[in-house]
Amino acid sequence: MTGPRYTPLAQSLPATVPFVGPETQERQRGAPFAARLGANESVFGPSPQAIEAMAQAASEIWMYGDPENHDLRSALADHHGVMPENIVVGEGIDGLLGYLVRLIIGPGDAVVTSDGAYPTFNYHVAGFGGDLHKVPYTGDQEDPGALFAKATEVGARLVYLANPDNPMGSWHSGAEIVTALDAMPEDCLLVLDEAYVECAPDGTAAPVEIDDPRVIRMRTFSKVYGLAGARVGYALGAPDLIAAFNKVRNHFGMNRAAQAGALAALQDQAWLSHIQARITEARDRIAAIARENGLDPLPSATNFVTIDCGRDGDFAKVVLDSLVAQGIFVRMPFAAPQNRCIRVSCGEAADLDAFAAALPKALAEAQERVG
Amino acid sequence: MTGPRYTPLAQSLPATVPFVGPETQERQRGAPFAARLGANESVFGPSPQAIEAMAQAASEIWMYGDPENHDLRSALADHHGVMPENIVVGEGIDGLLGYLVRLIIGPGDAVVTSDGAYPTFNYHVAGFGGDLHKVPYTGDQEDPGALFAKATEVGARLVYLANPDNPMGSWHSGAEIVTALDAMPEDCLLVLDEAYVECAPDGTAAPVEIDDPRVIRMRTFSKVYGLAGARVGYALGAPDLIAAFNKVRNHFGMNRAAQAGALAALQDQAWLSHIQARITEARDRIAAIARENGLDPLPSATNFVTIDCGRDGDFAKVVLDSLVAQGIFVRMPFAAPQNRCIRVSCGEAADLDAFAAALPKALAEAQERVG
Repeated sequence: MTGPRYTPLAQSLPATVPFVGPETQERQRGAPFAARLGANESVFGPSPQAIEAMAQAASEIWMYGDPENHDLRSALADHHGVMPENIVVGEGIDGLLGYLVRLIIGPGDAVVTSDGAYPTFNYHVAGFGGDLHKVPYTGDQEDPGALFAKATEVGARLVYLANPDNPMGSWHSGAEIVTALDAMPEDCLLVLDEAYVECAPDGTAAPVEIDDPRVIRMRTFSKVYGLAGARVGYALGAPDLIAAFNKVRNHFGMNRAAQAGALAALQDQAWLSHIQARITEARDRIAAIARENGLDPLPSATNFVTIDCGRDGDFAKVVLDSLVAQGIFVRMPFAAPQNRCIRVSCGEAADLDAFAAALPKALAEAQERVG
Repeated sequence: MTGPRYTPLAQSLPATVPFVGPETQERQRGAPFAARLGANESVFGPSPQAIEAMAQAASEIWMYGDPENHDLRSALADHHGVMPENIVVGEGIDGLLGYLVRLIIGPGDAVVTSDGAYPTFNYHVAGFGGDLHKVPYTGDQEDPGALFAKATEVGARLVYLANPDNPMGSWHSGAEIVTALDAMPEDCLLVLDEAYVECAPDGTAAPVEIDDPRVIRMRTFSKVYGLAGARVGYALGAPDLIAAFNKVRNHFGMNRAAQAGALAALQDQAWLSHIQARITEARDRIAAIARENGLDPLPSATNFVTIDCGRDGDFAKVVLDSLVAQGIFVRMPFAAPQNRCIRVSCGEAADLDAFAAALPKALAEAQERVG
């Protein structure tokens, strides 16, 4: 018995995982983390109204969710001042990125991103056989000019740009990005990942005309809205592009309670303001802890702070490993020279106390091991 | 501005939807359905322990779910007497079918199914460019011999067989299917969709050796377990095949509360027995209603009863439309001659009372309109 024949593409793919989850690490170390600050989740949680809506929905979970996501799309359309036809809801930005890449990228098609930007986007591009071209960060920022120049050079069909950026926390004004768009090739699409935009300074969200066919904007309930485990993301774009998702998406893929939770979360904008304040406070605290240890916190428009450990990637990796060994779940950038940093998500006071307590030992270990 | 370039495959795909959801129909008719009996959901609901687990999980929904689905896979492995490496958990069988087709089917690759079987499987095959070959039902049953003969003829890489069958409710013994497998081409994979197997007679689940590379079995929490809205399915198969899903799946795609709910549902096998009895009772009632109206209920190993309306597809379509207009959500088979039937999911007494009240008028309308 020979077993199934995979496609040549599937045969060529490694069985890699974009991220190792904290639960896997907890099983490996045999103990839970004391502070979960590695996945840019919102430890502050979602609106109590969202929790209530999901708890209520648990009793009607025998029904499939509405495959049109009608109520959530309508509310999002009102919220953004656009039409429901401009919005597709999906299983997190990760799910939507997968569908988008599938629609546009086939074997050998060129895609441009920044070296060290979101690995799950790269996972999808590889998964559909795309040819990924990476440009370096410029001063810890993704560089729209460099991305679009590379797109022109390689004839890219898709360019990925996160604003604000993960993992560096840096950002551009939205107006800058719209201006830079003029240099993008005409039949190329910009995937503008605005996962963190709800905690960024005013003016960070790109003022894209909603029917502009050059851009699709990705948003999520996983970050500032505090619903990472619910898996609800959405994309804003021109109606033709949004409609194309219906050709490939898992129409009945949305969890019914998650639909209800996201709707309730959207309707509680007061909670969002409350969380924005908590994020600002936590960012300041993380920055202060970094400085107390002689490290340089980078400016952040996100719900995390990236801390420059002042040396190279080997040094930062020892710091990271020590923090993890001490029960502090954090992550770090993948690519040099950004991998001189560690990335710490906003947390409750107790989480950050635990981080503050662990960091000096981590730095001492790194000094000793890397010298 | 020309907008994005889609892949040739994406350009060729229609923006069709495998199923129109009941919510869409409710919005179109301007009123909710009185009875929701069209999607083979379990109106009896999931285990109260599953509801409780999901309500509890709502307060920790700020965390992503475990991308390895470790706890659920371990429990499922114990339940089935296999290893966790034999199980992949995904966003319903629909999601898993999409990943599976993607791994095995590229443009022009041959796939075999029955004419009138699960449309979402066909949607995925079309979505990856596969060449779908359909064989007719034999006496309202999917026909393993005919499926494997066609697979040999066309060099198929994938064969789909649902046992029990949807939409007809018919079934084979699992042993028959395993025997029939010997006629399947060696490098072909059988997708055995056992979504309804928990309410089928003993011996329906196919006694496939877990490491047999010729078969992957699909199971779900959406039907008898009553968690359709949670989106939790799983596949049982050889470790190599199961591991291949890690190349393409949305690793962080599972809802955290759904993981907890499915685990609790699995652990409450007493509830499952209770539901099996409710399903038997409801099937008997639906059959009795059919007979009272001079119609022929087909034998069912599922949580629905398919009713032969005794004429052709046009007649059954009028019956269906009238039922829907009267507030009874039901569906019908797509392909002739099975489309002489309507399909009615098990319901509470009140649901079936509403169906019983509406059916005579629907039949009278059909008599009058079709003659």
